[in-house]
Amino acid sequence: MAIITLTTDLGSKDFYQAALKGSILSILPTANIVDVTHEVPSFNISYAAFVLKNVYPYFPKGTVHLIGIDSVFSENTRYIALKYRDHYFVGADNGIFSLLFEDLPEEIVELNIMQDLKYLHFPLVDIFVKAAIHLAKGGRLKDIGMPTDSVEERMLLNPVIERDIIRGSVIYIDTFSNVITNITKELFTKIQRNRDFTLYFRKSETITQLSWHYNEVPEGEKLCLFGISNHLEIAINKGKASGLLGLHLNDIIRVEFHP
Amino acid sequence: MAIITLTTDLGSKDFYQAALKGSILSILPTANIVDVTHEVPSFNISYAAFVLKNVYPYFPKGTVHLIGIDSVFSENTRYIALKYRDHYFVGADNGIFSLLFEDLPEEIVELNIMQDLKYLHFPLVDIFVKAAIHLAKGGRLKDIGMPTDSVEERMLLNPVIERDIIRGSVIYIDTFSNVITNITKELFTKIQRNRDFTLYFRKSETITQLSWHYNEVPEGEKLCLFGISNHLEIAINKGKASGLLGLHLNDIIRVEFHP
Amino acid sequence: MAIITLTTDLGSKDFYQAALKGSILSILPTANIVDVTHEVPSFNISYAAFVLKNVYPYFPKGTVHLIGIDSVFSENTRYIALKYRDHYFVGADNGIFSLLFEDLPEEIVELNIMQDLKYLHFPLVDIFVKAAIHLAKGGRLKDIGMPTDSVEERMLLNPVIERDIIRGSVIYIDTFSNVITNITKELFTKIQRNRDFTLYFRKSETITQLSWHYNEVPEGEKLCLFGISNHLEIAINKGKASGLLGLHLNDIIRVEFHP
Repeated sequence: MAIITLTTDLGSKDFYQAALKGSILSILPTANIVDVTHEVPSFNISYAAFVLKNVYPYFPKGTVHLIGIDSVFSENTRYIALKYRDHYFVGADNGIFSLLFEDLPEEIVELNIMQDLKYLHFPLVDIFVKAAIHLAKGGRLKDIGMPTDSVEERMLLNPVIERDIIRGSVIYIDTFSNVITNITKELFTKIQRNRDFTLYFRKSETITQLSWHYNEVPEGEKLCLFGISNHLEIAINKGKASGLLGLHLNDIIRVEFHP
Repeated sequence: MAIITLTTDLGSKDFYQAALKGSILSILPTANIVDVTHEVPSFNISYAAFVLKNVYPYFPKGTVHLIGIDSVFSENTRYIALKYRDHYFVGADNGIFSLLFEDLPEEIVELNIMQDLKYLHFPLVDIFVKAAIHLAKGGRLKDIGMPTDSVEERMLLNPVIERDIIRGSVIYIDTFSNVITNITKELFTKIQRNRDFTLYFRKSETITQLSWHYNEVPEGEKLCLFGISNHLEIAINKGKASGLLGLHLNDIIRVEFHP
Repeated sequence: MAIITLTTDLGSKDFYQAALKGSILSILPTANIVDVTHEVPSFNISYAAFVLKNVYPYFPKGTVHLIGIDSVFSENTRYIALKYRDHYFVGADNGIFSLLFEDLPEEIVELNIMQDLKYLHFPLVDIFVKAAIHLAKGGRLKDIGMPTDSVEERMLLNPVIERDIIRGSVIYIDTFSNVITNITKELFTKIQRNRDFTLYFRKSETITQLSWHYNEVPEGEKLCLFGISNHLEIAINKGKASGLLGLHLNDIIRVEFHP
C-alpha cells in the first residue's frame, strides 16, 4: 500500500487536518498517512514547494503527495494530479508545480472526478482525497482526469550570474534559524571552478570559507555550508543566524569568486 | 481494527502525549492512532468540543475518540464512555459531552474498570486508554462500566432570535484567523427565508452578501460564508480576519434580515 | 515489528522530520513510527533527556528510540546504539545517554556502519535510520558497531541534602506551565520520613502540603505534588504556575522537614 503524505497550511490546532486524515481512513483504512507539515504559512506556495521538493525524494517511489495550499475554488482553478520521477502529486494548479520540478512531469491530468466544482465545500476532502486514494491503490492517472501537458507557471527568483559573481537571495529560514539561499551546490560549484570566494551579506559581513559541518567554527561564529537541502546556507554554530545576523527572507547575498 | 483518535490539551513538546501513544501500543500494537489535536488551550472544553464535533463524522464508524481535557480526578468526577451515531467517546464527564452531541447518546456507561480512582496518577493512561482499547477491539460498553442515562450539562451560548434578527457570537478563531460564529447554516437558512440581510459587527462594519468561496471578493476584502464547519464565518480573502477586523472570541455579531 | 520513536529538535515546519520518516519507510515500509516530540529546544540535550527518560517506559520492550539532538559530526563525535532495560536507543554520544539512565546499559556499541563519517551529510538519515531499522528488525547490536563500555558523562544538577533540608532546582516547565523540579518522589520520601515540611521558593513563597491531584486546592491557588514524572512539581490549580509565580528554569527551591 502506497504512502500518502500531507503538506498543508491547515495548522494542527483546528479540526481541518484531522478531517483530512479521517476521510482518507474512511475510504482506505490501511492507508499509511505521513504528515510532511501542516505549518506552511497560509497560502505560501513557495514555502510549500521548498519543503516538498526537498522531502519527496526521501519517500519510496509510488508515494502520493497531497498538497493542501491555496486550493479554494475559483473560476480559473484547475485541480491536478501528476507523476514525476515515479512519485504522484495532487493539488491545485496554482503555480506550485512549476516550483517543484526541474523538468516536465511524466504525465499530468486535470481532475474530473467531480461534476460541479463550484459547490465544492472542502476541496482537500471532496476531491484531493479521492484522487490520492485512487493513486495510492495503484490506479491510473487517466482514470481520474483529462490529460494536459502543462502546469501554471510561477517564477522563482533565480540567482543572477555576472561573470565571477553570483547574486542570490534568502528563500527560507529553518527552525534552527539557519538562513537558506537560492544558490544550489550545483550552481556554486559550476561557477567556482575551485577558486577562493567571498560571500557578502548585510552591509559588510563576509565569509570566505565553506564548511562541511555546522561545528567547524567556534560556537557563536558564523559560517556557510551546503545544508541538507544542498542550498548555500548561512548559519551560526549553535546560534540563531537569522536573528543574530539580521538576515531575513528575500534579503540579497553576493558571492564573488577571486581571480 | 478500529481507529483511536486523540484530542487533548497535552501539547506536543512534553512527554505526555507520547506516553499516551506508548501505553496504547503496549497493549494493542496494531492500534491505528490519529492525533486530532494536542493543541487545545489548557482545560478549554468548549474549544475541544467544537473541534471534535466537527471532525468525528469524517472518521469511519466504530472509531474511538479519546478526549484528554480537564480529566484530573476529584470527588465528583465521573469517567464516561459512550456511543453516539456509531462512534465511541471516552473522557471525563466535565460537561464536554453535552457540548458535543445534539441528541442523547445511544448508550452511556460510567467507567468502573479501576478500583480506587483517588490514587489515579495519569487518568488518560490509567483508565481512558484501557477503555478505548476495549472498545477498539469490539468490546461492549457494559463490560467496562455501569449504565447511566445522562451526562453533565454545560450550556453553550446559543444565538438569540428576535423576529428578523439573529444575535450570535464568535466561538472560534481558526489557524487562518477566520472568525467562526455560533450561527449554523441550518438556523440562518431557516430565519432567512430567501431574504436579503445585513451582518453587523464591531461598531459599524457590515457585510450584505453570502459568499460560497473565500476568494469571491478581491484579496484583502471581508466576506462571510458558511465554512467547513457549516457555521457562519467572517473572513478576509487571503487575510487574517480576526486581527484585521478586531474580532475576538465571544464578540457579539448581529444578522438582520430585510423585510 | 518494533516501534521506532523519534525525539528531535527538528521542529515540524521544515522538511527535516518528514525526511527522517520517509527514509525509514523507504527501507522498512511496515515501520511503526511514533513522534515523541520534535519540539526539543535546539541542542538542548537535558530537555530531550527529561522527555525521553519519562516516556520510554510507556512503550513496549524492544522499541527503538532514535534521538536526533546535537548530532552534527565533529572529530570527537561517536555515534552510539545501546540496549537498556530491553529498549534500544540510537544517537550521538554527546552526554545525553548519561542523563537518561540510572545504571549502566546492558550493551553499548559505537556504530561503524559508515566508512567516512567526515562526509556525513544528514547523520540522522545516513546513519541513525540504518541502525534503528536494523534493531527494529531484531538485528544484533554487535552487527552494527564495536562494543564499548562507557558513554560520555554529563552532570545533571542534583539536589543537595543537608540534614533536614533538600535544595533542588527547576529542571522543566511543561505545556501547562507546571514547574518541575529535580527532586524525585523517591528522594523526598526517603528524607521526609513522614514529617511535616515547608517548601520555600522565590523570596517568601511557601507550600506546606503535598497534594495528590492538581484540583485539591481552590482554582488559582498554588500547590505541590508529584506529577506524572514523579518529580516534585509546583503548580496552580487551572493556572500557569511558571508565569504567575515567577519560577523559571534553574531557579532554586528548598524543602525543610520539621523536627
